Amino acid sequence: MRYFEDFAVGDAFELGSRSLSQDQIIAFGRDYDPQPFHVDPEAAKSGPFGTLIASGWQTVGVFMSLLVHGLINDTVSLGSPGIEDIKWLRPVKAGDRLTGRVRICESTPSKSRRDRGILKTEGELTNQDGELVMTIRAVNFFGRRPSPGR
Amino acid sequence: MRYFEDFAVGDAFELGSRSLSQDQIIAFGRDYDPQPFHVDPEAAKSGPFGTLIASGWQTVGVFMSLLVHGLINDTVSLGSPGIEDIKWLRPVKAGDRLTGRVRICESTPSKSRRDRGILKTEGELTNQDGELVMTIRAVNFFGRRPSPGR
Repeated sequence: MRYFEDFAVGDAFELGSRSLSQDQIIAFGRDYDPQPFHVDPEAAKSGPFGTLIASGWQTVGVFMSLLVHGLINDTVSLGSPGIEDIKWLRPVKAGDRLTGRVRICESTPSKSRRDRGILKTEGELTNQDGELVMTIRAVNFFGRRPSPGR
Repeated sequence: MRYFEDFAVGDAFELGSRSLSQDQIIAFGRDYDPQPFHVDPEAAKSGPFGTLIASGWQTVGVFMSLLVHGLINDTVSLGSPGIEDIKWLRPVKAGDRLTGRVRICESTPSKSRRDRGILKTEGELTNQDGELVMTIRAVNFFGRRPSPGR
């Protein structure tokens, strides 16, 4: 398991790829973002994107699942207090192949809780054409390596 | 249908309430955020929160679904370019009753696309004890009311 101390500013990780089917897009939309262009393929044709697209929140979920499988589940993750920025740059359609990457951009030991450190990360998803579809700047808590001096 | 022009800075909306079951928390976690404290009730007991909690992304999804049902589906929504800030302030457990509110905090006609305006919003979820569990600051595109002068 990797601890806070095992990450350095500038470290970058490839997280692998994932696609969404039309059924997955509609199922997520119905539960969490039931706008016509996320849940109704016919209505979506005359909507602002001309076709059914994934909820931006499902796109974030794809990134998160890649991040957890590709990195976080091998770390002492203590969750996240929040997000500093998300940009949705291009629509995501059924079958688009999304590839994730993440980079450590800030590393700070917590002052208030000595069991943890704070890593700020910049993540991105690109599609099968190499186009950037989403960027995200997040704050993450990781456990510190146990040490007799601390 | 409400257009960009039908919203003013300071307008606030009550969005209603929603809860998540343990099964819904686990199902979402498996698909989009498979950390032990989101998918495994036993492992979660010895994890950082002492119990199973919803993914922060599912908490955002609860807010989004309340926002769409309570407001956006009666508007000419054109999607969102991004999010300026999310804070997860308290864990969300199965059965917690989450209530949503949103306030318009900035209104700007788009300079580059005359068909739309940009509303910045501040949203929040509180739980059944009146505690704030999440805040979110978002950017939203809304269609402008058709006008012969534009």
